[in-house]
Amino acid sequence: MNEFEFKQVIVVRRDLEMGRGKIAVQAAHAAVSATEEARKMFTEWWMAWLREGQCKVAVRVDSLEAVMRLEERSRELQLPFARVIDRGLTQVEPGTVTCLGIGPAPSSIIDKLTGDLSLL
Amino acid sequence: MNEFEFKQVIVVRRDLEMGRGKIAVQAAHAAVSATEEARKMFTEWWMAWLREGQCKVAVRVDSLEAVMRLEERSRELQLPFARVIDRGLTQVEPGTVTCLGIGPAPSSIIDKLTGDLSLL
Repeated sequence: MNEFEFKQVIVVRRDLEMGRGKIAVQAAHAAVSATEEARKMFTEWWMAWLREGQCKVAVRVDSLEAVMRLEERSRELQLPFARVIDRGLTQVEPGTVTCLGIGPAPSSIIDKLTGDLSLL
Repeated sequence: MNEFEFKQVIVVRRDLEMGRGKIAVQAAHAAVSATEEARKMFTEWWMAWLREGQCKVAVRVDSLEAVMRLEERSRELQLPFARVIDRGLTQVEPGTVTCLGIGPAPSSIIDKLTGDLSLL
């Protein structure tokens, strides 16, 4: 994905029992919410990312702790992010953290956080 | 989902060979792009939907034709929508239509189009 100067990474917990449709919806929540953060606070990144074709990458983690560490790192690096907390109507308990959207942001920064993670 | 006055429906083609991660990214593209359409053109719907917690539902279709019919109906009903055309770097051919995002829009309208479709 070197051709993209900006990207958004969607981090999905795979230690939860979520089916294909549930994952798709949770990933979409993360994408929309993190995009909205970027639109409000990092408008130039947001615009450049849309112009490039809104590159998105979905990666997996296997624990809540891994999500929380990535959120903390995102905060330290002042990246836009959004944590998804599910209402728990289906498949997971209410209040479960399912996903984290990071970016859109420069790939060179975001890769420091997520470059080692496996694709979803 | 009767408690939600507004919703977004993400229509995913299941006749393509897309894995879990690919589907998640394509669904996220559809969600972000359709949301952006709504933000620009149906601002009140967009705001009300965000306020309600951005209800999203992922459904399946089994052909390109089904996607195109839903797009045509969305246009007729003047709903915000976004078709996702994949660059085809992985898993599908370049230019493949993978998803359609419809809404956010009033559930009462959107259900006319997608109420009969199966969940993804």
